[in-house]
Amino acid sequence: MIARPTLIDVAKAADVHASTASRALNPETRGVVSDTTVARVLAAAKELGYRPHPLARGLRTDTTLTVGIVVPDLENPLFPPLVRGAEAALGVEGYTLLIGNTDNEQEHTEAVISTLVDRRVDGLILATAELGSGVAAAVQSEGIDVVLVNRESTDGSVPAIIGDDHIGIGMAVDHLVELGHSAIGHVAGPPVLSTGLGRCKAFKAHLARHGLSVDGRIEVADWFQVAPGARATSDLVSRNPELTAIVAGNDLLALGALRALNDAGVSVPGDMSLTGYNDMPFVDLVQPPLTTVGLPYREMGTMAAQTLLALMRGEGVEPHVTRLRPALRVRASTESPR
Amino acid sequence: MIARPTLIDVAKAADVHASTASRALNPETRGVVSDTTVARVLAAAKELGYRPHPLARGLRTDTTLTVGIVVPDLENPLFPPLVRGAEAALGVEGYTLLIGNTDNEQEHTEAVISTLVDRRVDGLILATAELGSGVAAAVQSEGIDVVLVNRESTDGSVPAIIGDDHIGIGMAVDHLVELGHSAIGHVAGPPVLSTGLGRCKAFKAHLARHGLSVDGRIEVADWFQVAPGARATSDLVSRNPELTAIVAGNDLLALGALRALNDAGVSVPGDMSLTGYNDMPFVDLVQPPLTTVGLPYREMGTMAAQTLLALMRGEGVEPHVTRLRPALRVRASTESPR
Repeated sequence: MIARPTLIDVAKAADVHASTASRALNPETRGVVSDTTVARVLAAAKELGYRPHPLARGLRTDTTLTVGIVVPDLENPLFPPLVRGAEAALGVEGYTLLIGNTDNEQEHTEAVISTLVDRRVDGLILATAELGSGVAAAVQSEGIDVVLVNRESTDGSVPAIIGDDHIGIGMAVDHLVELGHSAIGHVAGPPVLSTGLGRCKAFKAHLARHGLSVDGRIEVADWFQVAPGARATSDLVSRNPELTAIVAGNDLLALGALRALNDAGVSVPGDMSLTGYNDMPFVDLVQPPLTTVGLPYREMGTMAAQTLLALMRGEGVEPHVTRLRPALRVRASTESPR
Repeated sequence: MIARPTLIDVAKAADVHASTASRALNPETRGVVSDTTVARVLAAAKELGYRPHPLARGLRTDTTLTVGIVVPDLENPLFPPLVRGAEAALGVEGYTLLIGNTDNEQEHTEAVISTLVDRRVDGLILATAELGSGVAAAVQSEGIDVVLVNRESTDGSVPAIIGDDHIGIGMAVDHLVELGHSAIGHVAGPPVLSTGLGRCKAFKAHLARHGLSVDGRIEVADWFQVAPGARATSDLVSRNPELTAIVAGNDLLALGALRALNDAGVSVPGDMSLTGYNDMPFVDLVQPPLTTVGLPYREMGTMAAQTLLALMRGEGVEPHVTRLRPALRVRASTESPR
């Protein structure tokens, strides 16, 4: 017996997303699809002998073919590639992705998540940094699958795809130590974010491993952005004139550090070596091109989507927390101390 | 008679979004809001003597307090500020914003828009560059208000907030002519996008106004991104060795031009002056900092949201198309020819 053609078959034959095919086939939703697309889908359905059958692929009958992703700060250039990676993986399976931005405010985060729940998404990917674990549980209790990306839950109860910041910061520190630096400071991200706190802890651990002092050599920026990075760097350097290298908690902080050092007449890398974190777009174009630690954000988005798709198909997900290995990108902002 | 307290009053008293207050007050949706927020909202409602009344502010009873925004390319750094501007203006009125990204593919654009329509957003902001005007009409026929931002409809039937590219490109050309340049080339964006086509037309018009030739001095990039900008610049410069200045169609193309010129040993601005377009984040940090034309993208997002809010309140919107004036940002990538 030949398998009955599915909605996915029709979508593929018409070269459209499954969600578009679904809408084109439904007279009630056809109005939002262009006439030419409707014609193409109907022709493909006719040719294949397609007849709607909501259980054909074992899909829940109440599926909306919609997934939500919640990010803390769209203006941080690392998030768009992550979103795009998730979007591409979900699109292959016919899902459309809706994005919510939270500005890292707890209350705004709750509003965005509950809006997506109200809109009946089939699953949620959360890249928000701070969140009471009760929210993920509440979402799950509504029958909506949840995956975390670029963060993890404190009790490990929610599947998560994250970068290994301990290894990543170690790569930056080892690189500077190999160049001959021993007076190394850290411009840290805010400790309320797991990434800010985790990278700062890793910095201390790796300096201790090398027998180097961190006393007074850590300055915390209010926020993972350029201006707070510049302010923290000015404070750090004026307090520690002996420093020859700075490890910044992310690339935006490093760009702020670069600006502050330029303004103070401190040349990078001549007077001060500098590393970033994330290898976000465009840091290879600044002067000097930034040495940084790269994380595969697009792949993190893809893996989060694939994990969510597995959950939505009712498959078990193992292992629960996936840590992706970062890579050191050596450019021109680091060299041996004078 | 003292006015009955509204949901907005409760939200303000509890210092939460109206949508959060609404969910906290509703036992069925309370689960997705944190316990502390629910307690704060209930306390505020009690103190104010609030009783739900769906028509209190003349809102439609079927409102979802949700607005969608559709952008063509989240990885272009100009869109996040635009989204944030819209989000802030909508948040004040208790609306939550859901974002869709389309990759500028017509079919994906349709899928994203129809998903947002299916999810019953109250209004839509479209920043997508290419779209059959029938789609906006179909959305409107579903009772959903629509505003365009950074693009306009061919017949002007949909309210739009856009930058004035003719004036903006004129600013870049005038700046170069004032510096003494006369052999000026253009790296154009794709002509299928109104921004690519419009800026190229503006370039021709302004060079004609100055009596300068454009023959063979325009090279079209496949896409508004760095790599296509580099390829187009290589072709443009090898065909026109006499050029002393390049006007790029946007900042990403200019960054590609900078990379290609650096690779070819052409110094900017010594051998070649270069202008970008958009004044996107970080172009002041590249070397040399980029002279570009700034558009107020955050304000465009805010104005689009305010226009949409007026439409959703049933107010007339005049004028239909608002053109925002750009501003020249002179940095170090332009100087007089040798």
